[in-house]
Order: sequence, then C-alpha cells, then structure tokens
Amino acid sequence: MKVLIAIDSFKGSLSSIEASRAVDLGIKEVFPQAEIVKLPLADGGEGTVEALLHAVGGDSIDTTVVGPLSAPKKAQYGILTNGNTAVIEVAEACGLAHIPVDQRNPLLATTFGVGQLILDAIEKGCREFIIGLGGSATNDGGVGMLQALGFRFLDEENREVGRGGKELKKIRSVDLSQVIPELATCHFRIACDVNNVLYGPTGAAPIFGPQKGATPEMVESLDAGLKNFAEVVWEQLGIDLQNLPGAGAAGGLGAAFSGFLQADLESGIELILELTAMEEKMQGVDFVITGEGKLDDQTAMGKAPLGVAQLAAKKGIPVIALAGAVPADASILNGLGITSCFSILNAPMSLEEAMNSEVAFNNLRGTAKQLFGLVQGVIKKEGNLQNR
Amino acid sequence: MKVLIAIDSFKGSLSSIEASRAVDLGIKEVFPQAEIVKLPLADGGEGTVEALLHAVGGDSIDTTVVGPLSAPKKAQYGILTNGNTAVIEVAEACGLAHIPVDQRNPLLATTFGVGQLILDAIEKGCREFIIGLGGSATNDGGVGMLQALGFRFLDEENREVGRGGKELKKIRSVDLSQVIPELATCHFRIACDVNNVLYGPTGAAPIFGPQKGATPEMVESLDAGLKNFAEVVWEQLGIDLQNLPGAGAAGGLGAAFSGFLQADLESGIELILELTAMEEKMQGVDFVITGEGKLDDQTAMGKAPLGVAQLAAKKGIPVIALAGAVPADASILNGLGITSCFSILNAPMSLEEAMNSEVAFNNLRGTAKQLFGLVQGVIKKEGNLQNR
Repeated sequence: MKVLIAIDSFKGSLSSIEASRAVDLGIKEVFPQAEIVKLPLADGGEGTVEALLHAVGGDSIDTTVVGPLSAPKKAQYGILTNGNTAVIEVAEACGLAHIPVDQRNPLLATTFGVGQLILDAIEKGCREFIIGLGGSATNDGGVGMLQALGFRFLDEENREVGRGGKELKKIRSVDLSQVIPELATCHFRIACDVNNVLYGPTGAAPIFGPQKGATPEMVESLDAGLKNFAEVVWEQLGIDLQNLPGAGAAGGLGAAFSGFLQADLESGIELILELTAMEEKMQGVDFVITGEGKLDDQTAMGKAPLGVAQLAAKKGIPVIALAGAVPADASILNGLGITSCFSILNAPMSLEEAMNSEVAFNNLRGTAKQLFGLVQGVIKKEGNLQNR
Repeated sequence: MKVLIAIDSFKGSLSSIEASRAVDLGIKEVFPQAEIVKLPLADGGEGTVEALLHAVGGDSIDTTVVGPLSAPKKAQYGILTNGNTAVIEVAEACGLAHIPVDQRNPLLATTFGVGQLILDAIEKGCREFIIGLGGSATNDGGVGMLQALGFRFLDEENREVGRGGKELKKIRSVDLSQVIPELATCHFRIACDVNNVLYGPTGAAPIFGPQKGATPEMVESLDAGLKNFAEVVWEQLGIDLQNLPGAGAAGGLGAAFSGFLQADLESGIELILELTAMEEKMQGVDFVITGEGKLDDQTAMGKAPLGVAQLAAKKGIPVIALAGAVPADASILNGLGITSCFSILNAPMSLEEAMNSEVAFNNLRGTAKQLFGLVQGVIKKEGNLQNR
C-alpha cells in the first residue's frame, strides 16, 4: 500500500504539513506498513514557500523589509537547494492578513518590500524566481516593488513619487537609468490564477480593493491611479500594462511583473505540480489524498486539490479529497477526477469549533482512519466482488 | 454488488425507512445494478412497529385508548401476517414525547392505555405479543396496564385505587378474580435494555423520573409508592417485583410485565434481529450499511446499529455506519464490528440545521454516494493491491 498525501492547508486551522501528518497518522492506524509520501500542497498563495522547500529542499531565509504600511516587517522567503532559485510569497512583504482591519488602506500600502526580497535573493546569487501573488494588501500597480529595484517614477516636477496607491496619479514619466543591472539576467515565474485587467470596471481596484479596505471613493481614486500609470507606461515605453496576463492580480503587481520584469504568469497549481515533480511522485501510488479547508463548487476550478486530482485521475489512481466543508452533492467534483470527497466533521459544530486546530487535526486523522478501514474491508472482500 | 441497508431512524429528522431510501439512492448513483435490501431497523423503541411490519409484513391497527393523562388518545399497533402476533410500542399509549413539557407529571400518568391495546389485540385473536418499552411518561409500576386487563388494586377500605403513580402508596391488596381469562394463553416478549430495579436509589423513580417531569419531592413520593406496591405484591402473591429482570423499565411497567404477565424480557435489538431474520438476509451480502442519528460511545453499548454490526462482523461482511454525529476517535466502534463510521455532515452547521429532514436526507445520500465511489475505486485498483 503506497499513498501520496498532497493536501493543501486548512486555512486558519492547519498548515499543509500538519494536515498531511494527521492523514498519515490515520492511515497508519489501519495500514502500519503503508508507504506514505507526504507532499505539502499550495496553490501559489500562502504555504507556497513551505511546500516547495519541503518538496525540493532548500533554506528558509529571514530578512526584514519595508512592510505594507512602511513600518519594518520581518519576512521569510526560500532559496531552493540549487542555490539559484528563490521562492517568494508577496504576502510576506505586503500581506493583508497581518494588518488590523481598521488600518487596511490600499492608498498607502506599498509593494516596496517585495522588491527588497528580490534584491536580497539577487545578492545571494539567485536568478530564478518563483513568486506567489496571493494575499497582498496593496493596489500600487507594483510600483513599490519596481522602486526597490531601481525604477524611478517621476511626477510633473521630475520628483520621485512616494509609496502607495495614492501616488500613481502623480506619475508622469519613468526613469530606467538606475534599474539594477542583475535584473536583466533574472527570470520570474509567477503563480497567478487571476485574469483581471489592470483598471476599469473589472480591474484590480473595484474587484479586489474593497476587501483590502478601500471605500468606494478610494476605489475610484485607486482605479484612476492605475489608469494613469498604465497610460504613462504605454506612451513612454510602449508596454500595454492594462492587457498583460494577470495585470490586475495583487493590486496591479501582476502588471509590474509582466510588463517590467518579463515574468511568465502561470497557473499556481500547475507551477507547483511541476516544481514538486508531483507526477513523478505518483509512480506506483495506490491512493492519492488531497483536500483543503473548503472544497466547494467554486474552488472546483483551478485550485490545488483539483490539480492534484486531475493528474492522479489521468494516471488511474483513486483520489480521496478531504475538507472541512464539501458540497452536499459533490457530483461536479467527482466529474473532475475526485473519486470521492468527504467532510472531516464528526458532528454538528460551528465553523469556529471546526476550525480549532486540535479539532480539525483529530477529525482529519479520524476520517482518514475510517476511510482506510473501509479500503481494507473492501480489499478483503474483493475476491467476492470482482465477478459481479 | 449486494448491499443490506439496516439503518435506525435519525430521531427527529428521518425515519428508518427514509434513511434507508437516502442510502439506497446514493449507492445506486455509483452502482445502478446493485441489489439493495432495505431492512428498517429499531431497538424496541420508536419505530419498532414500523420496522417489523416492513420486515415481516402485517397490518397497522388504529384505535383509541386512555392516554397517559387520561384524555382519549389515538394509538397504533401492528398485527403481523400470521394474525397471531401483535407488536406494541407502549409510547403509543403512554408516551412522553407528545405531552407538553409543562404538563408532564408521573404522579398522574397511567399505563392504562397499554392494557387497552393488549385487550384490543386479544379480541382480534392475538396471543403472541412483542412489546417495545421505550419512551413512557409513566411511573405507575404498570398498575394502569394491569387494571385495564382486569387486575384490581385495592386500598385499605377495599376500594379500587385510581390511576397514576400517586395511587401506588394506597395499595393494600390485589384482587385477581376479574383478570381476563385469555391472558393465561398469551405470551409476551418485551424489548427492554434497562436493568434497573423497581425502587430505591437505582430504581425507576430517581433514575427516570426527572426526565418525565418529576420534582425531587415527586421522585420521593413515586419511589415510596413503587416500594409499597412491591411489598404488597410480595406479601400477597410471593412475586418479587423489585428484582425481576427489567423491573425498573418504563416506570415499573417492566416489573408488571415480568411479574404479572410472565413476559420474557429480551435485548431490544436481539429481538428485532431475530424477528426480522436479519442473519438470513445477510446471506450473500457484500456490504452492510447501518447507523442512526448519533453514534457515540454511549450508544456503542446495546443499540441497534451495533447489533447489526456484530452480526455482520461475525459473517465477515464489512459494515459502514453512518450517523449525524460520530466519535472523533471511533476506535471503540471499530473494535465492535463497525468497519468504519462516518458523519454525514458536509459542512459546519448547527444541530438544528443538521436535523432538518431535507438536509439530513441529502447528506446521507451524498455520503453514501461518495463512499461507494471509493469502494468502486478500490475494486478497480484491487488487482494492484492484492499482492502488497
């Protein structure tokens, strides 16, 4: 019995590694001799560095950068064992999650720290970059990041503009003379599942601004700023930021990566599957366990567990998906490569209780145990079943 | 693929028959050709008549009796196809569930209606009785039932005592002269999983009185009444009601059945398993599905799903137990014949939402579908697994 556990984090309660461990323990209670391969999963958002360091090997680097609201912030990133590839989650430098709700303000928030992380990695010898775009607090079009890398954005009096989304309206020209030269030899791969344009009704500000703390007035101002930024860049550099892939991701940071750093934007999970050599690790596997906190109809599109499931289904491996919440009718998921999916809850409980780390761990472990108990029962019966 | 569904009711949300149907539909989505045997399950309490009529065949009889608080009450019982066997749930005549909480009063509540149901069945030709004792509102020592059958309980002035637990203290003698003669040819089998004595600290009044609405003062009075009743019977008839099997069940109704009607008290589920020919119906079955509303450590002892599971386990058939709530660590249940058990909940929700009939039905159906999807996946893989 060989099982591959490739389960995403249960956000707010279990990391991918903790969830993997719970499933591992549950399976081992039934099949103590089972060979269990644990491959922490991520979709390019939170947990991407951890997942890749675990799968590929490498070091976690601690540094301090300019945080989203310009106060110093500790930030981690990873350098893979080849010493050449850095893995960066932009949320480490400019993430929304750690800003108190009443202080969230995309007019002020900057991606400057993202540029600093890139600089730090360049200094350590990295030229390949894997970037997870999820969870930013910003709407600065990536201008902050570019500033940290030597790009200068000047106002009508040729003074460099400041940080945050509010500054974009002032930009009248771009000065490339001080861009750090190493950038030319760097290659960026961006995990990005967002397809929005940069500005306008489906742009970064109206779609993602409100969840970052923007009022309707702020959304309008931010949108106008992104539009001005794009127009200046188009006129001066001939780069169409508005329509680049992933332009509206992470408050326009996607546009900056695409337009200024020649980044390749890729589906987060496909990038992860490739980098973790997921397909190779499925060789000889009897069951794949995947899952995440909530496995509903929406996340059926493009998220990590589904990517894993589709790969496994292609290879004819049964896939069990585990989550805190699953659709009452999971037929859609079944049609997408998930053999069967189960909620790990053992009783009626509130979302808060379900998300308690200890409760979630025990429920995940218990559900895995019960499922593999059934698998064992079926295997024992199978001689009788095969001819029916 | 042949599956036996023997699932108890999900009390308050799905009857045993509805639950069976939900599981049936879920399995059929995966195995449309499966042979499904549905055997509604009960443990001698609510649903016993329905389960036996469904399993054995027979008629449901509608009648009207003296209710627990002496108002007329519609009551149903069953006569099985042999025409000789009546199935009676005492709760139909004297049940707690349909009395508003503020009117519950075991000083007044009587089992008289139970005797009337027996009389009615005797008149229709029945001489075999299957009695489910669960859910009574009474603490009258079964005196009400006996009164309906012609037993006379007299006070110190040789007047017949009235109805309800409060009257037991007055009993000074028993007059058997008017007992209906047919009783001598009747045989009673009582489904009873209660082992309490009749009176004293572990007797019917202190243990079950409070949930029937007894205050501490009432418990004391009821207990004294049962003691008096037992002492009179012992002195006059030489019957030791106190220590008979099931004496303290249903407010002493167990004692009346044992002591006055020579009833056999049996484990509810064992009685049901025998009457429904459960073992015979397990022939050739690949999977048994059982379950109930709540499958916790307590109900692990003696309840219906466990009885089914133990029978199936003896025959080497994998047993899947489904419930609204299961223990987070179900190892105890696994050790008792349940191959694996699962909560049917698909997401965090309140008990109220979980018990909504439609939600419960869909969750049960969905869980069955997912589980049999896994079974199908394992069967497909099994060639690879067998040699590991």
